[in-house]
Formats: sequence, structure tokens, C-alpha cells
Amino acid sequence: MTTAPKSEKDRVIVFDTTLRDGEQCPGATMTFEEKIEIAEMLDDMGVDVIEAGFPITSEGDFQAVSEIARRSKNSVIAGLSRANPKDIDRCAEAVKFARRGRVHTVIATSPLHMRVKLNMTPEQVLDLSVANVTRARNQIDDVEWSAEDATRSEMDFLCRIVEAVIKAGATTVNIPDTVGYTTPEEYTRFMRTLIERVPNSDKAVFSVHCHNDLGMAVANSLAGIAGGARQIECTVNGIGERAGNAALEEVVMAMNVRNDVFPWWNRIDTTMLTRASKLVSAATSFPVQYNKAIVGRNAFAHESGIHQDGVLKDASTYEIMRPEMIGLKKSSLVLGKHSGRHAFVHKLEEMGYKLGANQLEDAFVRMKALADRKKDIYDEDIEALVDQEIAAAHDRIKLTSLTVIAGTHGPQRATMKLDIDGKIKIEEAEGNGPVDAVFNCIKALVPHEAKLELYQVHAVTEGTDAQAEVSVRLAHEGRSMTSKASDPDTLVASAKAYLGALNKIVMKHQRDEPAQAAS
Amino acid sequence: MTTAPKSEKDRVIVFDTTLRDGEQCPGATMTFEEKIEIAEMLDDMGVDVIEAGFPITSEGDFQAVSEIARRSKNSVIAGLSRANPKDIDRCAEAVKFARRGRVHTVIATSPLHMRVKLNMTPEQVLDLSVANVTRARNQIDDVEWSAEDATRSEMDFLCRIVEAVIKAGATTVNIPDTVGYTTPEEYTRFMRTLIERVPNSDKAVFSVHCHNDLGMAVANSLAGIAGGARQIECTVNGIGERAGNAALEEVVMAMNVRNDVFPWWNRIDTTMLTRASKLVSAATSFPVQYNKAIVGRNAFAHESGIHQDGVLKDASTYEIMRPEMIGLKKSSLVLGKHSGRHAFVHKLEEMGYKLGANQLEDAFVRMKALADRKKDIYDEDIEALVDQEIAAAHDRIKLTSLTVIAGTHGPQRATMKLDIDGKIKIEEAEGNGPVDAVFNCIKALVPHEAKLELYQVHAVTEGTDAQAEVSVRLAHEGRSMTSKASDPDTLVASAKAYLGALNKIVMKHQRDEPAQAAS
Repeated sequence: MTTAPKSEKDRVIVFDTTLRDGEQCPGATMTFEEKIEIAEMLDDMGVDVIEAGFPITSEGDFQAVSEIARRSKNSVIAGLSRANPKDIDRCAEAVKFARRGRVHTVIATSPLHMRVKLNMTPEQVLDLSVANVTRARNQIDDVEWSAEDATRSEMDFLCRIVEAVIKAGATTVNIPDTVGYTTPEEYTRFMRTLIERVPNSDKAVFSVHCHNDLGMAVANSLAGIAGGARQIECTVNGIGERAGNAALEEVVMAMNVRNDVFPWWNRIDTTMLTRASKLVSAATSFPVQYNKAIVGRNAFAHESGIHQDGVLKDASTYEIMRPEMIGLKKSSLVLGKHSGRHAFVHKLEEMGYKLGANQLEDAFVRMKALADRKKDIYDEDIEALVDQEIAAAHDRIKLTSLTVIAGTHGPQRATMKLDIDGKIKIEEAEGNGPVDAVFNCIKALVPHEAKLELYQVHAVTEGTDAQAEVSVRLAHEGRSMTSKASDPDTLVASAKAYLGALNKIVMKHQRDEPAQAAS
Repeated sequence: MTTAPKSEKDRVIVFDTTLRDGEQCPGATMTFEEKIEIAEMLDDMGVDVIEAGFPITSEGDFQAVSEIARRSKNSVIAGLSRANPKDIDRCAEAVKFARRGRVHTVIATSPLHMRVKLNMTPEQVLDLSVANVTRARNQIDDVEWSAEDATRSEMDFLCRIVEAVIKAGATTVNIPDTVGYTTPEEYTRFMRTLIERVPNSDKAVFSVHCHNDLGMAVANSLAGIAGGARQIECTVNGIGERAGNAALEEVVMAMNVRNDVFPWWNRIDTTMLTRASKLVSAATSFPVQYNKAIVGRNAFAHESGIHQDGVLKDASTYEIMRPEMIGLKKSSLVLGKHSGRHAFVHKLEEMGYKLGANQLEDAFVRMKALADRKKDIYDEDIEALVDQEIAAAHDRIKLTSLTVIAGTHGPQRATMKLDIDGKIKIEEAEGNGPVDAVFNCIKALVPHEAKLELYQVHAVTEGTDAQAEVSVRLAHEGRSMTSKASDPDTLVASAKAYLGALNKIVMKHQRDEPAQAAS
């Protein structure tokens, strides 16, 4: 994706471990189908190596890795294994159907991990590593060996063991910052020293795998590449153990945007990054922080007056990459109390309003006052501000009374009285559930084409007698109208919220086509 | 918070801009009360400078900054202003009540910003900066000057303008990476060159202000300090324009945990970091990503077998800081499909179970099978796995029928028939809202002490006739029991969910005290 001349020595292999390190963090477990879908997306996106799972841990993991291997198109499919024959054989079995499979075997090399966790001497760890790499190489050509907790390991020992595993046939040597402890300068030096001191280091690709415990996973990953590594292990959205791994979208975009200081290239199709982020967020149910770099919903959004003004004049004033590069349609200008006149006028023009200077100034002052009280300013709020008649207008449809009979002996039944332009109308309707019955009453009383897009009840309280808050969103002629209402009775709140949205549609209609204003 | 000898030259001033840069990002607007609460918390936490807002932008902002200034205890209270007299005077007026107030005036210095946004020549920008700093210094002792988009500015011009503003009285000079463009090595060099070349640089504190567009805000901030700056501008949870600012909790913990390579100190009480994060997340309604460094819910959580085993043997195998340091009680071991026997036995012991080897193996295999299908394994799931009788047991209380009358003519009324241990009982109850009436019926039919902790309805659908899913959590004798139920009728689903949780409590009671098993 970069324009620099592409020599093979400057190529960075992107190794995605969303399905292994990502999936093993608490709460991120994915189903078989979700894993297949994510793997296919990663393959399409140009990920060089997909670590698809940890086959020995469960039958489900084994099945997922095998199936991903079978379906792989361009990516190498890797599986993780600990340092024992059973793990390695099971892993090799799972990845063997891939166009190209990789066995990734890991063992800890730091004094603390060897003593406390493994209860082994360094010599035992070295011998075991050689034995495992040899065993893996007897089954498959592509073998990665990882020195768990490498950044807290002793350099002399690490040099010895790395030399030995390369001799045994490891084609990739991973030097993870397992606990997210290192810093950019330190990691560059560490990687450079290791590669310089290991005599056969040119026989393997060195790899970085950084965790984000101190917020430096991306900077550390790139620092490791500067030190001579040529593979980055990362995950979509940066999920993974504890504070997660380096985020794929961040390392890739950093290399692309700052190719002058990170002069390496990779094969990722960055226009798929937004989709990848959404897919992984949906599969794991892990929300993406609004201010997440590259893929957060605010990453290309601007509310403050100074920034909006700049972006309207030239987007590069506040954006170092274009949203299209990562598969987003455009930057978003959000109106709020920090917005200035420039953005306000821009928004009004988008909405089809043209105001005189005085009118504009009035509306702008009212917008700022509203924004001091209200977090988000929607298009409807602006319409109300600009159009005094609307702001002053009363709802044409009001709820007069409602009775609902619900329970296990369906169908549920609702009786509703509405005040429509001063006239009382009454109707009764059935439904599949009480909310359905209530909405059916409204549809009978006020026939309309609008489609219900969203119905949500919020009632997180210590008692059940607290207010229920209901949100309703109706779609009508390409526009959405949202309304909220509260009442101790969920069903009354539902009716009021629906009528609120419907009133907005009626008002809009009346304004757009005054001649046809309904009577 | 560090143990190194504390010389004043190694002190890093922590400047929090959660209430200014954080608040100005789309959707983060906070109320007056929320701002006051956050400012008091930051003051208690040891933040050196609190940027409380941008007084000229609205009356609400002005009021909030003034009130925060009035209430300040130890922190310096700063306000932002653009480069014009009106902004500066308004800002000085807002901060004047503080124990120590600061006027922070900003103007862009990059060729792009000066040309496109300001439409000014560099000489005009220089003259204006000097005039504004002078004007601010005539009103207040503490004046910060910021070179917006500094990292894309020309070094020669930046040196000239910085020298001029220091001469005019600026006490802090901020060199922001406004667009999140720089890299650690580059920023260290940039800051060092600037400080070395400006002849009067020793008369001001240099400051970093880094954005996270490429995921490197934390590493860049610390790199700037390495280059000679001594103030870090940051925000709680890293909120701020676009991808946000450097996260306060991350820069502070990086300096504390890696004090060997970042040999500086600060005055933050880190045990308040967890509370600060929660407070800001609640005020802005911005979720904190689960894998957020330091304060994400997974930052100290472990599910995988290898990691759980390590942490049980010695937490430092996978944790470079103790959760107590940031105000968390303890690390959490989450059971899931990646968990091993060690963590499973540990969890069973915590729950008071002691199993023989065969029983344990059986339960472990069943746990792994369940975990392949289910994302989270709760204590109740484990109880069910271990205790075959419970797994096989049928609910003792079942819903036979329910009728609810609701609507605008309260009180709402419910009639309910329950099958309790095979006997049918009937009851009628009123409530404030239909859900309350339903739960009152249950309380009348099955008297119990459990307290309702959570009541939630999920019904995000395209139509209202889809299933409603209701979650109920009851607290009883220090334990929580959660149950979910679905039904097209929300009220029936509510009754079933409540009864589900109640059945769990009855079963647990029966198991704990078999002699008293209720009849």
C-alpha cells in the first residue's frame, strides 16, 4: 500500500493473532462460524499469517483451526502449541490442510518464568526447544519458535537458545514482549543485539509480539522492526491478553502514513480495516472505544469550532490520513457547543436551509445554548432551532388514555384514546405481545407508512417501580426520527415514544409541503 | 510515587486536559456538575494543572471554569484561549479565582495551518503571539503558550517564535503533536533540538501534548520528556479530539513501572486511577475498551490456562504491576475454554467444593465442553456442572398463568398462578407499573428476602412482535443469581426471568441446608 520501491528486505510480514491471543482473553470466545468468517476476511485483507487457534486446548479449537486451514486462500495458517510432543502433533494435524501451514511452538525463557512456572533449568528449556522444533520440522516446513517473556530474558541465554532453534530448523523466531514491559528504544537495542550476536540469524525471520500494558505496543512493534525484525504479530482492534496486543490497524497505518521514518511495506488492503474492526467487535461483543485510533467512531469526527473550520478549509489540517484509506466514507462534523459558525452554516446548507445574517446569528446563539444542556445535537434539533414555528408548535397527536391486557393468555389487547388535532379518537387492537398491541392501536388511529427501526427499553434500576425509558426510531422517506419517553409503566412510555417520533414526521411533512398540511 | 531520589529537575508536571481537549470531542460534553466532580477528583489525585475548559466558547464553559477555579485546592487551574484579546481576557477572568490560575493561549505555527486556516504570514503569527502572551502576563503570572501543529512546523521559525514568547513572559511552552503524526525517535530529537537552539529555553517549562492517531501518544509523550520537556498534557482514559490524547493513567504508570528507563517522577496518587477512569467514563458515557491499558476490565484478568497457572504461582509472571497500585482489589481469574485444571481447582476451592480425582476430571471435561459453546462461565454454571443433582433437578416454582392490566389508569394490576412443588397457588397484586405488579405477585406467592439488583429488557428488533429478552439479577445472602427469559410478551418474560433467579436461590438453599429443604 506504500509507494516506496518494494524490496523484499523491507517487507514486513503481518501475522494476525486475533483468533488466538485475541480470542483467549476473558470474554472474547468466538463461535466456530465467527472464527471462519473472521479468517476469511483476514485472508482477503492480505494478512500474511493467520494464527487460527491453539488446537490442543479443546475439540472446538482443533475443528476451527482445521476448517480455517482447509479454506485458506493466500494466508499461511498457524496454530499455537506448547513445548511438548502432544501439542505439536495436534497442531501439525490441524494446520496440515492449509495451502501453507505453520506450527508455532512457545516456551518461556525468562529466569522468572523458567523457575516459577516451568520449574526447569535453562539447559532443560534449551534441550526441549530443540527437540520440539525438530519434531515440528519433521511434520511441516514452516515452524515458528517463540521465547515467551523474551524481553525479561537474559541476552546471553537468549542468543544461545535462538541459535540452537534456528539450527534445528525454526524459520521464524519470535521475541515477544509478553508482559508489555519494554520501551521503544530498549526494544530496538534488544532486537538489534540479538540479531547481531546470533551467528545464523540470517536463516530465520525475527518477529515482534508486543502487549499494551503500558500503552506502547504499537511504538514497540515498530521499534522492533527498526531493530531488524520483519514480522509483526498483532490483532484487530488490539484485543488480546490483559491490555491486548498491538492493533493491526495502527501498526499498518503508522507504516503507511509515516513511511518516511518507517520505510517498510506490507500487503494489507487498508480499505478493509473498518470492516475488519466491526466484524471482530461484533463477534467478541467487545466495544471499540470511541477514541480508538484508526477505527474508533471519533477517529475522523470533529466537533470543535477550530477543528471543523480547519477541516472544511483543508482536511489535512487535522487529518493525517483520509478516511477513505481505511474504508470509511467521510469525516464527520458533529455539531455541539464547541462548534463555530462555519460548521453550523455548512450543516444548514447540507440540510437545505439558507438563512439571512440575523436569522443565522439568532439560530447560532440558540444552538450554543441548547448544546450547553444537551450532549448531542441531532438534525431534528437543528430543524427545531431554525424553524421557529416548529419550535413553538405543539404536538398534533397526544395520548389521552391507554389500557392494556397482557399475560400468558394471548393475544394481548390494547385500548387507546388519542387527541388528534383536538379531536378524541378511540381504537382497540390486538398484538403479539403488549407492545405490539399498543403500536397496532396507533397504526389504526393514525395510518402511516413509517417503519419501526428501533425499539429499546432502558430500565436499569434497583427497584421495578422506577421510570422506564423507551426509545423509538421511525424511518420515513429516507429520514429517521427518534423519540424517547419515560413513564413508570413501560407500555405507556412505549406509546408516548412512538407518538413522539410520529409527531416529528407529521411536522416535517407539514413544513415540506405546506399546501398539503394534513387536517 | 516512585522511589528514586526526587530532584526538582526530574519532576514531570502532569497537566490534565480531560475537561478541555477531552470534553471537546464529539459526544463527550459534560454537565456543570460532572465537571466540578471530575475537577475535584483530579485535584485530590495530585494532578498539577487542570485545564478546566475554554471559557470563551460558551457561558456554560465560563461558569464551569470559574467554579472549578474557586474550589481548587492544590492544582493550578488553566483555561484555553485563542490568539485574540477577547479570548484572553475572558479566560483570565475565569481562572482568576484559583489559588493559582493559568492562561493557556494557542496559535498554529505549521505552514499548512498558518496559510489555510489562519490566512496569516509567519511574521503575523509571531507578532500576535507576543502581543497575546504580553496581554495575558499583564493579568496573570502563569501563562502557557502553545504552538498548534508544532510537529509539522519549521524548526527555524519555531525557534524564533518560542524565543520571542518566552521573552514576552510565557512560563510554559507547549509543543503539541496536534495531529498525532510524530514518532518517538523523531519527537525526542525535535524537542532536544528546539530546547538546545532557543537561547532562553531555561526560562520556561517545555511541554508535550500528543494525540493518538497512529497509536503512539504514550510513547511519544515519554520521548518528548526524554528530549527535555517536563510537562505532559494528557487525559483520563485518553479521550480527546479524534483518536484522543495520551492517557494519563498510561503515561503515569509507564514512568512508575519503568522508572529505570524513564527516570522522572510525578505527584499522582495512582491508587485513584481506577476511580478516575470510572468517573470520566460515566460522565461522558464513553465506554472504556475492555483491553484498555491500566484501567480496562481485562487489564488484570486472565482466562488462559498458561496465564492462570503462572499468576497463581507468582503474579509477576504475567503482571508488571500489582492491581492494588491502581486502586483495584485483585486480579481476576476467569474460567473459560482456555482455562486449565489448576485454575478450575482454585475456583472450586474458592466456592467451597472438594472433589476426588475422578469427579474432578469429569467436571473439568464437562466445563471445557460447555465453554466451547458459551462465552462466559459463571459460578452458577460451575455449581451445575459439579453437582449432578442440581443439573438434573427441575425448577420447583413454575409460571402457570399471568394476566396483567396496565395503562394510563393506574395502579396496574396482575393476576398470577404458580405451580410450587406441584401445588397451584393464585394471587393478585397491584404495582407502580405492570412489571412492579408482576413482581409483587411473585413476592406474595413465594415470600423471600432476595433483593432485585438488576432488571433489563433487550428488544432491539425491526418489529415489536419479536421476542423480548429480560434479565433479572437477585442478591441473596451475599450471592447474586442471574436469570434470563424470552417471550413475545415482555411481562411474561419478566415473570419467567424473576422466577428463574428465584429457583436458583431455592436450589442453593436446599443444597446448603439439606435438612431444612423446604416442603
